[in-house]
Amino acid sequence: MSNKVAVYRKEHFNAAHRLYNPLWDMAKNDAVFGKCNNPNYHGHNYDLVVKLVGEPDPQTGYVMDLKILSDIIKEKVTDKFDHKNLNKDCEEFKTLNPTAENIAIVIYNLLRPAIDVSLYLQVRLYETERNFVEYPVE
Amino acid sequence: MSNKVAVYRKEHFNAAHRLYNPLWDMAKNDAVFGKCNNPNYHGHNYDLVVKLVGEPDPQTGYVMDLKILSDIIKEKVTDKFDHKNLNKDCEEFKTLNPTAENIAIVIYNLLRPAIDVSLYLQVRLYETERNFVEYPVE
Amino acid sequence: MSNKVAVYRKEHFNAAHRLYNPLWDMAKNDAVFGKCNNPNYHGHNYDLVVKLVGEPDPQTGYVMDLKILSDIIKEKVTDKFDHKNLNKDCEEFKTLNPTAENIAIVIYNLLRPAIDVSLYLQVRLYETERNFVEYPVE
Amino acid sequence: MSNKVAVYRKEHFNAAHRLYNPLWDMAKNDAVFGKCNNPNYHGHNYDLVVKLVGEPDPQTGYVMDLKILSDIIKEKVTDKFDHKNLNKDCEEFKTLNPTAENIAIVIYNLLRPAIDVSLYLQVRLYETERNFVEYPVE
Amino acid sequence: MSNKVAVYRKEHFNAAHRLYNPLWDMAKNDAVFGKCNNPNYHGHNYDLVVKLVGEPDPQTGYVMDLKILSDIIKEKVTDKFDHKNLNKDCEEFKTLNPTAENIAIVIYNLLRPAIDVSLYLQVRLYETERNFVEYPVE
Amino acid sequence: MSNKVAVYRKEHFNAAHRLYNPLWDMAKNDAVFGKCNNPNYHGHNYDLVVKLVGEPDPQTGYVMDLKILSDIIKEKVTDKFDHKNLNKDCEEFKTLNPTAENIAIVIYNLLRPAIDVSLYLQVRLYETERNFVEYPVE
Repeated sequence: MSNKVAVYRKEHFNAAHRLYNPLWDMAKNDAVFGKCNNPNYHGHNYDLVVKLVGEPDPQTGYVMDLKILSDIIKEKVTDKFDHKNLNKDCEEFKTLNPTAENIAIVIYNLLRPAIDVSLYLQVRLYETERNFVEYPVE
Repeated sequence: MSNKVAVYRKEHFNAAHRLYNPLWDMAKNDAVFGKCNNPNYHGHNYDLVVKLVGEPDPQTGYVMDLKILSDIIKEKVTDKFDHKNLNKDCEEFKTLNPTAENIAIVIYNLLRPAIDVSLYLQVRLYETERNFVEYPVE
Repeated sequence: MSNKVAVYRKEHFNAAHRLYNPLWDMAKNDAVFGKCNNPNYHGHNYDLVVKLVGEPDPQTGYVMDLKILSDIIKEKVTDKFDHKNLNKDCEEFKTLNPTAENIAIVIYNLLRPAIDVSLYLQVRLYETERNFVEYPVE
Repeated sequence: MSNKVAVYRKEHFNAAHRLYNPLWDMAKNDAVFGKCNNPNYHGHNYDLVVKLVGEPDPQTGYVMDLKILSDIIKEKVTDKFDHKNLNKDCEEFKTLNPTAENIAIVIYNLLRPAIDVSLYLQVRLYETERNFVEYPVE
Repeated sequence: MSNKVAVYRKEHFNAAHRLYNPLWDMAKNDAVFGKCNNPNYHGHNYDLVVKLVGEPDPQTGYVMDLKILSDIIKEKVTDKFDHKNLNKDCEEFKTLNPTAENIAIVIYNLLRPAIDVSLYLQVRLYETERNFVEYPVE
Repeated sequence: MSNKVAVYRKEHFNAAHRLYNPLWDMAKNDAVFGKCNNPNYHGHNYDLVVKLVGEPDPQTGYVMDLKILSDIIKEKVTDKFDHKNLNKDCEEFKTLNPTAENIAIVIYNLLRPAIDVSLYLQVRLYETERNFVEYPVE
C-alpha cells in the first residue's frame, strides 16, 4: 500500500447555457435536448470538486496546500465561467455543446497544465444536486 | 395558543437572468450590478420553499395535502420559469429586474390566488445556497 | 429589544407509518391519501428541530445546555418513535392520523412539560427534505 | 487515458422494512438486528444515486441523457419501492433480508438489463445520511 | 401587508474556543460545561446567516446588495474570528463565555452599526449542523 | 464480477488544531501555513466517513453491522479526538502536523487493527465542507 492521499477542494460558479447541436435543425434539437434547448438560455449553480492524488510532503503534511489549489481553480476556471453565458462568452464552447460531460472535460484540460505532473487529477461537476459527472474515469 | 401549523414544500427550477436597470447606461449598470449585468446572461438553480399556515383539517390531519401544493407550484411557477431566461421568456420580468427579491414577490403573487384565502402564504427563494430571500415579512 | 436568544437542537428518528381515516372506506382513503395509505405501511427518516427561546443565563451564557435538551428529546420523543411503526407501536397515534402536522403537535405536547415554562418552545419536523412542518405558529 | 466520463443521477423513495432472518428465532433476531427487527416495521427515506460510465456521444455530448436515465430508474425501481413495505409488498424481498446491501444489489439487478451493455453501472444507496452502501465494487 | 422582503447571506469561519466561568473552580466548570471545558480548547466550523428586512429599492430591486453585505460581514466579523482562538485572540471574549448564544449577540453588536438603521437585523449562528442559535428574537 | 459491497458510516468530532513545522522558524511557518499557524489554535467540525468493502454475510445480509462499526469508530477515534486540542491533547500529533492528510492516516491506523482483515478499509475526512481528504488511495 502506497502512502498516497486524495485531497479535494470544492468551488462553484453560476452560468447560463443552452444545449444544442448546430448541425441539426430546431426540431431535432428539441427532440433530443428538450427544454435544455431554449434559445434564450437557462442556467445553473455549478459545484466543482477537484481531486488530486499524491504523497503528502513530509515537511508540511500537505499533498498540496488547498488554498493554492483554490487560487488555481479560481484563476483557470471560475473567473472564466462565473456569471457567464457558456455558449456565447466562453471560447471553449463556441463549437462544443456545454453538457456537464463536456464542461468537466474542458475544466480538466484547463487545470491539468497548472497542476504538478506528479499529481493525479480528477474533476467532479454538479450541474444540479441530482445530476453530476466525473472525469476522467480510470 | 391557536392550533395552527405551518407546512412547507420545497421545489426548484433552473433559469438564466441578467440584472440591470434599462433607465441607466451600461457604466452605471456595471457599477451597481457588476458581473450580474452580463448582457449574455448567467444562471442559477433556484430552490423555492413555499410556506402555508393554517389549522389541520380534523378529518385528514393535513393543513393542505402537500402533493396538491406541489402540483399548484408546478402549474403556477416552475412550469413557467424552469429552463427559461427570466428576462426574455417571462412576461413578469419584461420591465422588472429579476433580483431574488423581485422573483420572490412575483412568485407570491402567482401563488396567492391559487391558495385558499384562509391560509397564510410565504415564499422563500434560494438564488444560491448562500443568498436567499423571503416574502412577505410581517 | 429584549436579550432573548433562540436555541435549536436537531435530532432524528426513523419510523413507519400509514395515513388513513378509519371512519372512511378504502376508496375514499385512497382518493385522499393515495400511496400514503398503503395498508402495509411505508416509512421515513424524520429530522426534528426543537427551538427554545429565552434569556441566556448570565453565569453560563446558555439559554439551555443543548446536551441536556438533546437528552430530554431522546427520552421523551426519539426513544419512543425511533424504529417504530407509529400507527401500531405508538399510543399517541392509535386514533390520530400520523401526518407530519399531527406528529409535530404530539411531539410538542410530549416535550412541553419537560421544558422550563419560562422558555418558548416550537418544533419543526422534516418528513422528507422537501416536506416539513412547524408547530406552534404564533 | 480514455475519454470516459461518469454520469450520476440521484433519485429517492420512502419505504418501510424490517430486518430479520426467518430461520432464526426472535431472540437471535433481536440479538443480531436489535430495533431494526421491529415486527411492525420501521422506515426510511432512501436516496439512490445511479452511476454510469461511458464515452460521451460526439453528437450530443451526453454519456446518456439523464432525463432518460431518470425515467428508467422511475420505471424499474422507484415506482416499485416508493411508499411500499419492502418485506410485504415487494417480490424481491419475500425471502431476502432488506438490508441496504441487499437492496442495492436488487436495484442493480433491476437496472442492469435496462441500461446499454456498453455502460458500466454502479448504485449507491443511502439508508440514512450516515449509513450508505455501494454496489458493485471492483 | 407591507412590501418588506427579508434577505439572507451565509458566511462561515473556523475557530477554537473553551467554555468556562472563571469565577467557578474546575470541578464546577467540568460539571456544567463537560468536555467543552477542555483547557486546551476545541473548535468548530461556524456557519453564520445574516438576515436583513427592508423594502426593495425600486431602482435596483435590492433590499441590499448581498455582495456589499458579504463584504461588511467579512470586515466586521469573519476577518476577526476566522482561524482564531475566541477566548485568547478576541477582545470580545476576554471576559465573556463564548457560547453560541454569546457569540451571536457579539456578532449582532459588531454588525448593527454597519447596517443602515432602516433595516431590521438578525443573526443565526450554527456551531454545528445540530446546534444553532438566533438573535435577536422578537 | 464479485459480489462485494462497500458500506459507509459517517461520524463527526469537533477539535482544535494548529498547523506548523517545529523545525522551521515562525516566519517560515507563517509563509507556509498562514492563518492556520495561529499559536493559539483554531478549530473545526470534522466529518469522518469510514468505508469498508466485503461480501455480505448470507445469513444477515450485512457486510458489517454499521451499529458495531459506529461503536468501533467511537471507541478508537471520536472519543480520543472529540472536543480535544489535537496538538496538545493527542499523543498522535505531538510530533506530527495535524493536516487533514495526516489526521486521515492516523485514523486509518487506529481503525485498521479493529476491523476484520478480510475487509478493505478507507477513510474520508472533511475538515470543512469544501476541504476534504481520503486515505488510502489504490
